[in-house]
Amino acid sequence: MSKDTVGIALLGMGVVGGGVADIIQRKRSHLRDMVGCPVELKGILVRDVNKPRATQTPHGIVTTVADDILSNPEVDVVVEVMGGQDPAFDYILKSISLGKHIVTANKEVMARHGPDILTLSRKKGVQTLFEAAVAGGTPIIAPLLRDLVANEVLTIHGIINGTTNYILTSMSQNGADFGDTLAEAQRLGYAESDPTNDVEGIDAAYKLAILATLGFRARVRDTDVFHEGITRLRTRDFQYARELGYAIKLLGIATSDNGSVQARVHPAFIREDSMIAKVDGALNAVEIQTDLAGKLMFHGAGAGSMPTTSAVIADIVDIARNLAGNVAPPPIGKLSERTHVQPISELRTRYYIRLMATDRPGVLAQVGGVLGNRNISIASAIQKETDEVAQRAEIVLMTHRANESDVQQAIRELEALETVAEVGNMVRVEEW
Amino acid sequence: MSKDTVGIALLGMGVVGGGVADIIQRKRSHLRDMVGCPVELKGILVRDVNKPRATQTPHGIVTTVADDILSNPEVDVVVEVMGGQDPAFDYILKSISLGKHIVTANKEVMARHGPDILTLSRKKGVQTLFEAAVAGGTPIIAPLLRDLVANEVLTIHGIINGTTNYILTSMSQNGADFGDTLAEAQRLGYAESDPTNDVEGIDAAYKLAILATLGFRARVRDTDVFHEGITRLRTRDFQYARELGYAIKLLGIATSDNGSVQARVHPAFIREDSMIAKVDGALNAVEIQTDLAGKLMFHGAGAGSMPTTSAVIADIVDIARNLAGNVAPPPIGKLSERTHVQPISELRTRYYIRLMATDRPGVLAQVGGVLGNRNISIASAIQKETDEVAQRAEIVLMTHRANESDVQQAIRELEALETVAEVGNMVRVEEW
Repeated sequence: MSKDTVGIALLGMGVVGGGVADIIQRKRSHLRDMVGCPVELKGILVRDVNKPRATQTPHGIVTTVADDILSNPEVDVVVEVMGGQDPAFDYILKSISLGKHIVTANKEVMARHGPDILTLSRKKGVQTLFEAAVAGGTPIIAPLLRDLVANEVLTIHGIINGTTNYILTSMSQNGADFGDTLAEAQRLGYAESDPTNDVEGIDAAYKLAILATLGFRARVRDTDVFHEGITRLRTRDFQYARELGYAIKLLGIATSDNGSVQARVHPAFIREDSMIAKVDGALNAVEIQTDLAGKLMFHGAGAGSMPTTSAVIADIVDIARNLAGNVAPPPIGKLSERTHVQPISELRTRYYIRLMATDRPGVLAQVGGVLGNRNISIASAIQKETDEVAQRAEIVLMTHRANESDVQQAIRELEALETVAEVGNMVRVEEW
Repeated sequence: MSKDTVGIALLGMGVVGGGVADIIQRKRSHLRDMVGCPVELKGILVRDVNKPRATQTPHGIVTTVADDILSNPEVDVVVEVMGGQDPAFDYILKSISLGKHIVTANKEVMARHGPDILTLSRKKGVQTLFEAAVAGGTPIIAPLLRDLVANEVLTIHGIINGTTNYILTSMSQNGADFGDTLAEAQRLGYAESDPTNDVEGIDAAYKLAILATLGFRARVRDTDVFHEGITRLRTRDFQYARELGYAIKLLGIATSDNGSVQARVHPAFIREDSMIAKVDGALNAVEIQTDLAGKLMFHGAGAGSMPTTSAVIADIVDIARNLAGNVAPPPIGKLSERTHVQPISELRTRYYIRLMATDRPGVLAQVGGVLGNRNISIASAIQKETDEVAQRAEIVLMTHRANESDVQQAIRELEALETVAEVGNMVRVEEW
């Protein structure tokens, strides 16, 4: 049956939900032209009906009872913009079982349960779209699924967390320290009051799991993604990076090699003249290398009410066009379940190591000896900022390519040396 | 009727056609998985059947007779990769009339006749897709039509001709002159033996007409696009640009303001620290500014056999999925036909002007007087490279924002001055 109205329900009315409600109403006539029939709000699930909201909505559609929405036959598409695992995941499953199409911006749910949700959707003949779950308003999911369909994706490199990119940009440009910059980001609304998910790389790991799953057509879970945050970076690390010709970014990196996938989120030294090094502030960028199309980059806003709304509405229109035209959703490709995930210990790359040592002859040789025993050879060394009173010197090393497990072991051995006060930081170098 | 095989015909077997034939055969099993049924070559139109080719094709499908292909009921999708207006446009119309779906990489045909082709397609119930017509393997058409559907596009800025970007990058980095760099580009296969379409900005104007038409949902013809080529740029212009903090790129620029569209292709000074200034060599990039998603950039290969093939196959799979699943194509939005196109004379921007004048007191004042009379005020001036023997000096001016018509008139007046030997170049400055 072809529809004469496409009914939308929103689960959640926060920053994104408010934006979606606003645009569905404000661009009513444009959306009708694009879809072929009106797109109308039929229900909005909130926690508190009486909370004052910036966006006016049609009378009587706001409710605190999920079943009011899920059982409403006028609702064709359920738009989940609550965020978090619970109760969003349950609502999504229930909606699909009831034959509703789903648009979600929920990276956590899609990273953990995406393949199961897509399988259930296929079984129930509905579409589940989630463009807004990664990189907000920057198209990346649809390009991966549609435009790169002929390609084998080889590598994914992304700046996919705006909060940490804002903090790192600010630390790099203003020489401010992590704590002050985080406080400033919180004041400006770029970071949440509990910033753990962002600064520890957990949010980026969710998004990378989604990109890797789609890109490699293989199930990559959030728990398969190694993640390390940005809290150990010091202003000095940015100074050394600059001296050596690098920028420091929190990258999500996924590579696939003969069915073996590696996926990791961590701060990385990247060549300062590379394009992705220029991605500053809260912006996002994803660079994808493929066998046919070569290297592609998608760059834009990674969050925010209107950019995220842009992505959510694109998904709504995609589904609504199918409904209005009485067409079935496109088939979804199958995912390989036999993915081998390589642990971080098997990584082989270059490393930046900063340590504080006693300033006396032979220390550098001793450090070099520990590394040499683990087959780690030094590409360059800087010794600076000697504290003459304490007789300590900071040593910065760039290694040639080495094994992560050897480097981890060598750092433990360096820390055990009497002449080494501490290994201040280790940052992986990413060149591609 | 849902299909058990999707039949493909290629019109043309050059660099792109050869790539498409290769990938359809080499990725046979992957494409079957993505589509839901086999995708098979059923006909290939060439000029010379006996010409040796790198790609093997099934026996008996190569022909020099277009009707063999167009009247073949096994052909569902006609892939036009001949290029040029004739006879490609005719073949496309005939194919649509016969109920075939179209995939084309033809920017010339789509710039000139795209809206008519899309209207005929809608009438005949077939899809015409053309992702490869702009920016080769970099997705831009589908993101505009799908991902940005909720947005109003405000501006488009693109490096959309790889040949000229290769030449400008080389002139800038190596200090080589235009003629030598063009010859080198021709030797390396980046430029054709007749380079007119590329170096005069005609190729970029075709692509910009397509992007502006889709982005602004208004008919913008190739003849509506002002174009100026790169042949007047001298090595000195790149030196002065660098001194002033700019790079020089051949940009396609389209803006829309209350139903009035301006579209132009010309060399432009752009801030050297902007992202698009880093797009080097034969690569392409398109930056799109919208009301909701903000500023987005798409960056990647703009030409080449495999990147273009990637885009062509994405379109084939899109159509083939609809055929295999027995679904109708999505509705195509309507284009406004009432577009007002603003002529270049109404442009208001900043200008770089380089001229050679007699080296004597009062000349700069005289030049300033001519500009001042036309309401053009000078932001900065450089006087250099004085030729003491000839008593001539080169003067470089950066203006504040001024009207194009005033600048054009002032340049004629400057050239008429006895003290001015020649106005060597004028380049528009683009800041956005």
